[in-house]
Amino acid sequence: MSFSFTVITKDHQTSARLGKIRTPHGEVNTPAFMPVGTQATVKSLTPEDLVSVGAEMILCNTYHLYLRPGHELIKTFGGLHRFMHWDHPLLTDSGGYQVYSLSPLRKIKDEGVYFQSHLDGSYHTLSPEKAVEIQESLGADIIMCLDECMPYPSSSDYTRESISRTTHWAERCRKAWKSKTQALFGIIQGGVFPDLREQSAREIVSLDFPGYAVGGLSVGETKAELYEMMDNTLPLIPDNKPRYLMGLGTPQDILEGVKKGADLFDCVIPTRHARNGMLFTGFGSLVIKNAQYADDPRPVDPGCTCYTCRNYSRAYLRHLYMANEILAPRLNTIHNLHYYLNFLKQIRTAIRDSQLNNFAAAFYENQKRIPLQNESTRSLYFPEESTSSLAEAGNEG
Amino acid sequence: MSFSFTVITKDHQTSARLGKIRTPHGEVNTPAFMPVGTQATVKSLTPEDLVSVGAEMILCNTYHLYLRPGHELIKTFGGLHRFMHWDHPLLTDSGGYQVYSLSPLRKIKDEGVYFQSHLDGSYHTLSPEKAVEIQESLGADIIMCLDECMPYPSSSDYTRESISRTTHWAERCRKAWKSKTQALFGIIQGGVFPDLREQSAREIVSLDFPGYAVGGLSVGETKAELYEMMDNTLPLIPDNKPRYLMGLGTPQDILEGVKKGADLFDCVIPTRHARNGMLFTGFGSLVIKNAQYADDPRPVDPGCTCYTCRNYSRAYLRHLYMANEILAPRLNTIHNLHYYLNFLKQIRTAIRDSQLNNFAAAFYENQKRIPLQNESTRSLYFPEESTSSLAEAGNEG
Repeated sequence: MSFSFTVITKDHQTSARLGKIRTPHGEVNTPAFMPVGTQATVKSLTPEDLVSVGAEMILCNTYHLYLRPGHELIKTFGGLHRFMHWDHPLLTDSGGYQVYSLSPLRKIKDEGVYFQSHLDGSYHTLSPEKAVEIQESLGADIIMCLDECMPYPSSSDYTRESISRTTHWAERCRKAWKSKTQALFGIIQGGVFPDLREQSAREIVSLDFPGYAVGGLSVGETKAELYEMMDNTLPLIPDNKPRYLMGLGTPQDILEGVKKGADLFDCVIPTRHARNGMLFTGFGSLVIKNAQYADDPRPVDPGCTCYTCRNYSRAYLRHLYMANEILAPRLNTIHNLHYYLNFLKQIRTAIRDSQLNNFAAAFYENQKRIPLQNESTRSLYFPEESTSSLAEAGNEG
Repeated sequence: MSFSFTVITKDHQTSARLGKIRTPHGEVNTPAFMPVGTQATVKSLTPEDLVSVGAEMILCNTYHLYLRPGHELIKTFGGLHRFMHWDHPLLTDSGGYQVYSLSPLRKIKDEGVYFQSHLDGSYHTLSPEKAVEIQESLGADIIMCLDECMPYPSSSDYTRESISRTTHWAERCRKAWKSKTQALFGIIQGGVFPDLREQSAREIVSLDFPGYAVGGLSVGETKAELYEMMDNTLPLIPDNKPRYLMGLGTPQDILEGVKKGADLFDCVIPTRHARNGMLFTGFGSLVIKNAQYADDPRPVDPGCTCYTCRNYSRAYLRHLYMANEILAPRLNTIHNLHYYLNFLKQIRTAIRDSQLNNFAAAFYENQKRIPLQNESTRSLYFPEESTSSLAEAGNEG
């Protein structure tokens, strides 16, 4: 069984679509959010936990796994699925983003990227061919072309040069791609320049991939720029191919991305925020370490049905957090991922009913209606001047 | 339903007994091992995980919970069971051992112990009455008298003075004890002096408690002294009362304790060793970080049926450990606790069949039969010259 994508129905008032991705390891209902399992583990959770919170596909990071424990080792174990005991759909990125965000030294040349490991300072080369080879060894159901992820801001001249390289690398990845049970996605770049996004989209789409990603967003640009690039780029991806918005984002970003036609999302926000004790609720976020929760018997979100909310009080979660207990990140991660995956489920239901605009209006209204009683119950969901605070929390796990 | 203890059957060749403890939160089959949940959580596991590895009763530490989040807070939540979502039998210690092992400053007086918090340096007093009051607020099914846990070595003169104080404190605890749904256990001390152990046992038993503990062992004494004290003290506890050997120990210590008539055990060895990557197997212990496991596809113990061994390779566990992943302590803890609790289950079966000596012989033979191939597969199970290496890993969670 190989890869396929089907659009099941479309929302009448937005560009949102309900779809289904089929892979050799099962199906994914889209729009979908992928939890990030950087080092072959979604931090603190077992695969069974992930299924219980509603995850259908997860993402692992090629850069990390290439450096440790090594793709060849994982290959001898029959691939990443078996190595990490995850028998469901899986996506690996190309490694390019982490070279950009983590390596203490990197040099981009036309043949590939030279970089130093953040673990031990050793030197490595990542070429388009190597990125495909590593990902074929890992064996994920969806693999990504090597691209250049530019810093924000970058000049239009540099961006023009960069997207040509990204296109050239995509051609080389496509040529190197042998394992046709794995779907190779192309990545559209172009910074915040509409004309360059269009050029990149045209070039990448002309190479005919099973799916397409929009990369290089959520790296520090303003919300206005982010949404403009979504509006500009997503319609250029063929209707019958999945559209993956890489490294996004907040619930609001995801909702807006879905409305503009995106099908796939990944982000470390729910998992990283969980480990930092910031929990998502229907009425904004909650910082569990705050003193006001010390004797609060309520669950994190009284409307939530996750394992954490069904069994533990805010007071207990605060105690675990303050006492630096290992159970804290786990219970918090279960809650935040359940929040995200349930949010996507509600979005899919709204698309099926062609009610996404109403759903979005109710979502924003609900966020507004609850007064922000104090600084600890601030909302994550309103536009910020810049996404720079999320850059750190972006693509990397 | 209040506390009871029944001896079901006895082994014919040793002093071991098969028994059942009944508490308001359910039954415990003895001999039993209690995982340690220091701060109202057995590190890295949920209560459901604990049930799945076979735990029937756990222990929490009064000292830690008194300091953070505070027993009065836990009382307002309906007690520790509800606070931590553990609906099964629970034991709290008196706090005395942690005052001895953790406080940067302590002064023992006849009225109680004055000590400084290891968290913030604040000053506190723990009297017998206070220890009972705190434990009644926590609401465990079994609570412990405040005792003085002496360092090793201590002089016979000091030990004589100390056991008198411990007896006096036990009388005061017994008087202060109001909540009769909680069973208050007396603690026998006496260092490594047989005559003082006897005196302490006589005095504590004369106060008529629902159960008795032997304390002050596994604090640095030799194995010979440890076993001598077990031999000397356990028979002095009435046959119809549960006998709790506090802070023990290695599988061998537990097996020897059972043979000498002990019913209850607790120790941080399986959980702490798990977090340090030392895993128990039927053929000695295994240090998961060792390079030889980097590409080892076998489970930790091919004979083990725990969740970890059913689903993960040594190579994956080593990867998680080396990458400092949160899932590592969890998978390792599941394995080690499963090992311990399954070991106790096998011991109970052997007692039922009156085959404990044969079981013990086979256990030791099995340990011997497997050659120690290298230093990473050394055995934890053979007598060490001193238990001092375990003192650090003793009673404290």
